[in-house]
Amino acid sequence: MRNKFRNLLFLLLLCLVTGSVYAEDGYRLWLRYDKLQDEAKLKNYRQAITEVVFEGNAPTLVIAQKELVNGLSGLLGQEVPAAQRLTQAGAVVAGTPANSALIKSLGLADKLQQVGDEGYLLLSADVSGKRGTVIAANTDVGVLYGTFHLLRLIQTQQDISNLAVTSMPKIQRRVLNHWDNLDRTVERGYAGFSLWDWHKLPDYIDQRYLDYARANASIGINGTVLTNVNANALVLTKEYLVKVKALADAFRPYGLKVYLTARFSAPIEIGGLKTADPLDPQVQAWWKQKTDEVYTYIPDFGGYLVKADSEGQPGPHNYKRTQAEGANMLADAVAPHGGIVMWRAFVYSEHTPDDRHKQAYNEFKPLDGKFRDNVLVQVKNGAIDFQPREPFHPLFGAMPKTPLMMEFQITQEYLGQSTNLAYLAPLYKEVLESDTYARGKGSTVAKVIDGTLDNHKLTAIAGVSNIGTDRNWTGHQFAQSNWYTFGRLAWDHRISSEKIADEWVKMTFTNNNSFVAPVKKMMLNSHEAIVNYMTPLGLHHLMGWSHHYGPGPWIKDKPRADWTSVYYHQADEKGIGFDRTKTGSNAVAQYHQPVQKVFGSLKRVPEKYLLWFHHVPWDYKTDSGRILWDELAYRYSGGVDSVRQMQQTWDSVEGMIDEGRFNHVKTFLSIQEKEAKWWRDACLLYFQTFSKRPIPQGLEEPAHTLEYYMQLDPKFVPGI
Amino acid sequence: MRNKFRNLLFLLLLCLVTGSVYAEDGYRLWLRYDKLQDEAKLKNYRQAITEVVFEGNAPTLVIAQKELVNGLSGLLGQEVPAAQRLTQAGAVVAGTPANSALIKSLGLADKLQQVGDEGYLLLSADVSGKRGTVIAANTDVGVLYGTFHLLRLIQTQQDISNLAVTSMPKIQRRVLNHWDNLDRTVERGYAGFSLWDWHKLPDYIDQRYLDYARANASIGINGTVLTNVNANALVLTKEYLVKVKALADAFRPYGLKVYLTARFSAPIEIGGLKTADPLDPQVQAWWKQKTDEVYTYIPDFGGYLVKADSEGQPGPHNYKRTQAEGANMLADAVAPHGGIVMWRAFVYSEHTPDDRHKQAYNEFKPLDGKFRDNVLVQVKNGAIDFQPREPFHPLFGAMPKTPLMMEFQITQEYLGQSTNLAYLAPLYKEVLESDTYARGKGSTVAKVIDGTLDNHKLTAIAGVSNIGTDRNWTGHQFAQSNWYTFGRLAWDHRISSEKIADEWVKMTFTNNNSFVAPVKKMMLNSHEAIVNYMTPLGLHHLMGWSHHYGPGPWIKDKPRADWTSVYYHQADEKGIGFDRTKTGSNAVAQYHQPVQKVFGSLKRVPEKYLLWFHHVPWDYKTDSGRILWDELAYRYSGGVDSVRQMQQTWDSVEGMIDEGRFNHVKTFLSIQEKEAKWWRDACLLYFQTFSKRPIPQGLEEPAHTLEYYMQLDPKFVPGI
Repeated sequence: MRNKFRNLLFLLLLCLVTGSVYAEDGYRLWLRYDKLQDEAKLKNYRQAITEVVFEGNAPTLVIAQKELVNGLSGLLGQEVPAAQRLTQAGAVVAGTPANSALIKSLGLADKLQQVGDEGYLLLSADVSGKRGTVIAANTDVGVLYGTFHLLRLIQTQQDISNLAVTSMPKIQRRVLNHWDNLDRTVERGYAGFSLWDWHKLPDYIDQRYLDYARANASIGINGTVLTNVNANALVLTKEYLVKVKALADAFRPYGLKVYLTARFSAPIEIGGLKTADPLDPQVQAWWKQKTDEVYTYIPDFGGYLVKADSEGQPGPHNYKRTQAEGANMLADAVAPHGGIVMWRAFVYSEHTPDDRHKQAYNEFKPLDGKFRDNVLVQVKNGAIDFQPREPFHPLFGAMPKTPLMMEFQITQEYLGQSTNLAYLAPLYKEVLESDTYARGKGSTVAKVIDGTLDNHKLTAIAGVSNIGTDRNWTGHQFAQSNWYTFGRLAWDHRISSEKIADEWVKMTFTNNNSFVAPVKKMMLNSHEAIVNYMTPLGLHHLMGWSHHYGPGPWIKDKPRADWTSVYYHQADEKGIGFDRTKTGSNAVAQYHQPVQKVFGSLKRVPEKYLLWFHHVPWDYKTDSGRILWDELAYRYSGGVDSVRQMQQTWDSVEGMIDEGRFNHVKTFLSIQEKEAKWWRDACLLYFQTFSKRPIPQGLEEPAHTLEYYMQLDPKFVPGI
Repeated sequence: MRNKFRNLLFLLLLCLVTGSVYAEDGYRLWLRYDKLQDEAKLKNYRQAITEVVFEGNAPTLVIAQKELVNGLSGLLGQEVPAAQRLTQAGAVVAGTPANSALIKSLGLADKLQQVGDEGYLLLSADVSGKRGTVIAANTDVGVLYGTFHLLRLIQTQQDISNLAVTSMPKIQRRVLNHWDNLDRTVERGYAGFSLWDWHKLPDYIDQRYLDYARANASIGINGTVLTNVNANALVLTKEYLVKVKALADAFRPYGLKVYLTARFSAPIEIGGLKTADPLDPQVQAWWKQKTDEVYTYIPDFGGYLVKADSEGQPGPHNYKRTQAEGANMLADAVAPHGGIVMWRAFVYSEHTPDDRHKQAYNEFKPLDGKFRDNVLVQVKNGAIDFQPREPFHPLFGAMPKTPLMMEFQITQEYLGQSTNLAYLAPLYKEVLESDTYARGKGSTVAKVIDGTLDNHKLTAIAGVSNIGTDRNWTGHQFAQSNWYTFGRLAWDHRISSEKIADEWVKMTFTNNNSFVAPVKKMMLNSHEAIVNYMTPLGLHHLMGWSHHYGPGPWIKDKPRADWTSVYYHQADEKGIGFDRTKTGSNAVAQYHQPVQKVFGSLKRVPEKYLLWFHHVPWDYKTDSGRILWDELAYRYSGGVDSVRQMQQTWDSVEGMIDEGRFNHVKTFLSIQEKEAKWWRDACLLYFQTFSKRPIPQGLEEPAHTLEYYMQLDPKFVPGI
């Protein structure tokens, strides 16, 4: 027996090692169910959890049960079996009153009424006289979400002995936007290629699709737009609808609905019509018929996402119609089926050269209240384009009669693409907590989009996905945290950046606080680091041409002024920054008071937005006491120092996690350090040609000349 | 103790299950080291193998040692540790006389002299008075190859108690050709995208690169051309050379050399010259300098692969120079560094409309003996383009003074792309065993390319890779077998298709003969099945336009006649087939006698080549007794039946392997069945318009009309 034991032990060790060689490549994301390390807690959990009881067996419940059994067994390092009936104390009982007599017997009607059709309760309770844990919801998908929440508590080693959790999402439609093309390239994608293997659909359902759906379910994401906003009408043809259906069928039990982008000129391109005029009855009929067809394949199809009249995409303007007229045509087509239209506000005129900052507001505000009930206007967090920092979009708070939804970017188009560590929760929170003052103090952007400010029932939030075929889904191991964050904030925008980071680090890596504490800190500082070495003090849009990789503050002479960098920084011998006050473009006037006043005041504008709203002299005295030029140099340099600090932090946690992911991150940080220095050196040298001042003593000299940086021409940058 | 044991057992089971959930997605290829199932054999191995002894610690030896320890421990289900010195019987002792005193002490000088600088000996021997197993070689890489051979023996449960293996490769340079573009698309690639993440090179060495190198080492592949033959000169710029160097450094310890494709017009495109004339001294100087530069990055750079004057690629013809003059310029540049040039013979004139079949021979035969010593002419297996079956290329046997190398296609451009199961060893063997009669009977193609027919020291073989970013490397699980096959045949072209399949199935799936026997049979019949449902009886080039997916026998009216299908099948009311005899293009005249006579004779030509060489009446009586039209219909139908048979075979082995890969293959077979029927129906309906005869009774009616098939237009087919 002893020999057998020894052999078995060895086998186990071998297996664990071998298993973990495969397991720790990032593929498991935050859904890792390895045996907990804390012996005391492990003992408690093992006593508290003995079996899993589901009485229903609908597909979603089967999925939830499997997750619970696998998860609990892995975490507790011992079998936690599924039982048909409750047999002992320590049962985890999950279900709805409709499918579980046990749940029904608990008298939770009042509590359940609060949680709607996606929420759940987690309770420590006596069930049939035995102490156990209850996951109760009104729907199967609520049970699934509750299941993941319970697992998260244990993954993060929290106390479950007195659970009294009531949770429901604050925003209704929590949607990923995949900028995926049908040829599997991903626009602004830095994690390989598109997950959707269209050529082998509908027959072949890649395991990856199911793991994708499961990951989304674990963070409450309930919708996915499969195709690029720069749309291809072909996806609406039968050839593709059968493939989309296959994906929708695979996703459905995970609570994940499918949406598609609608190419406005589809009636012409695939319908054979001569026009796509939204007021043309034939066009309307075509969309109605086409939409009915879509719903025959996918009865719970979510609806359309549309980019129109923007960057070459066709739209209502081609026919001298308004955005509302365009949106309403599609809205009428999906309405009978319960579908929605998400109509992007990212529109800027091909003709009038007004400040880009103002264009979406000018286009959309007059249309407030003119959209159908099932239309949301999808608004980027800021008025330019996902810069490392942007003040909130003035449309938030400007369209009270229309449900507005947020469009966040998860993929790091302007935040270091595949190679820079950037935890984006602080960016998202900064926007969500911004006060629009639309209805006085406290009119936060969060309240606009969760419907409570203007009493909208239809609410949504979108995240431009950073997911691709890379083994670890997101390219950079830490980019996973932003997918996770998006889900958590979509569910509840009140959760703090710190808490989300805490959860994610513990689930993804380890509960060991010697790792968790410094790594969280590193994450929480990472966004500001990038702002500093790319676009400090409100600078924006300084990136390389087209691919957006690396610095390009010198970019000028392009077909549109507002595609250049010089347009945005306006550097000259006097100073730098875009005057958006009344002496300039007066974009500030689109904000309510007192925001308008504060942003418009040189003294009062938060320094992080200084050069976003003001053209400021090089010798202007900033909050630090340094003149602007010097402060810029310190910010840029500080950003590089931050990355070096991150490298030291990461080195200090070597050995606390698996070698594979440790080395991956270490390598990526070294790439990031080089890129940070590149940004800093190139930008300072370029702006110096205007400031004509020296880089402050004590700060590093640039590694090369300005000419060197200007002639760099990276080839085949991913994502375009 | 019993409880502990039980828990441990459960943990182990859990771990194995969890581990195998990750392990069995095809990623491990044939390098799976799971505990052997046969108890008796396991017991014997455990007695025979107790430790691994390497005395040297060069990088390649460290890799070999790790492979051996991991492999043996896994297979034997118990720790087989690395030992610094030999301590017991059952040691596996590995090394060269130079780095291992133990090996040196064995007196193997004579035997080792036979195996050259890549071969090895595997011996059961007494070492220091203890019975053990010896892996001996002249070089570290030989030890690595011997290591994999030993592991293969155990993976396939063969007797190792009396080993006396002497193995050396019959062909010197065994090279993969990746048709990978710098934007990571793969031309004719059906397994995702390019492995090479150029954007993150040189800093980030993806684990995938190392696993790729290891897989190649396990089958003796010692070279890899990283870039597409439709070349991009940028890869020769410094920006990319540092990246190539990073890959070369990663591959080197696995014995894998790096080559690149050379764009003939590079002197103009990146060199700023006005010409790329190979006889221009400036051009020659540029190539010399560029090549010297490459060697400063990669001292053991293999050399260049060139596609020139073909399908739009620039070449010597642009300057009215010969292929030899072009090749020799590059040969002179690499010669001082020991490099080679592989110059592709796939040239066909843009102007003269002669039978494509004849053009490479007409271009290259006159140049025989005019190439530098370090040039090989790389010849596709057949004279058209990788069709499901082609007679051997007439160039084999036509250029005795020039080393010719084989170009096989592993990726299934014309053999069902990602979705069809095709084991290609029979195709490769058919070519290799073809008798050119160049020096009388027995002048096989194999002897041409292994140098023995015409006494060439420089020998090589290339396989156009089917590898990409898909998790299982090759898209279709069974496509892995062709990568494996290529390596095994490159090492020793005498190995039979059956033996290779036997090895691969056992290593990749299981030794269970209830699985092995039927699956091998399925594999061995798979190539013929595809020939039958796509291009039976010598038909060729009938595929869909551009993407080459699905049937397109009706294709005509293209810029070049020899890009159409009608050009190749020549179907008319009288009959079908391309007359390559003296009444036609007389391509047969390029073969030696008696091949020329046999191919040219309607009666004697092997029926598998009938319509390749002859235009044959619809009512011609074939070997079966059926008229040609009926025989065609039977062949096409038989091909579809074969796939259905494969489906039954596969279904019959359910449960014998992991669910994941079982279901994957099952799904792919169902796709293949649909595609086989599609090919059959479309081709028969189309040819019927000429034969004007009914499909023989008893055979299935086509599912749709000819019009239906002709208007099918698959979008975004991978690989183009």
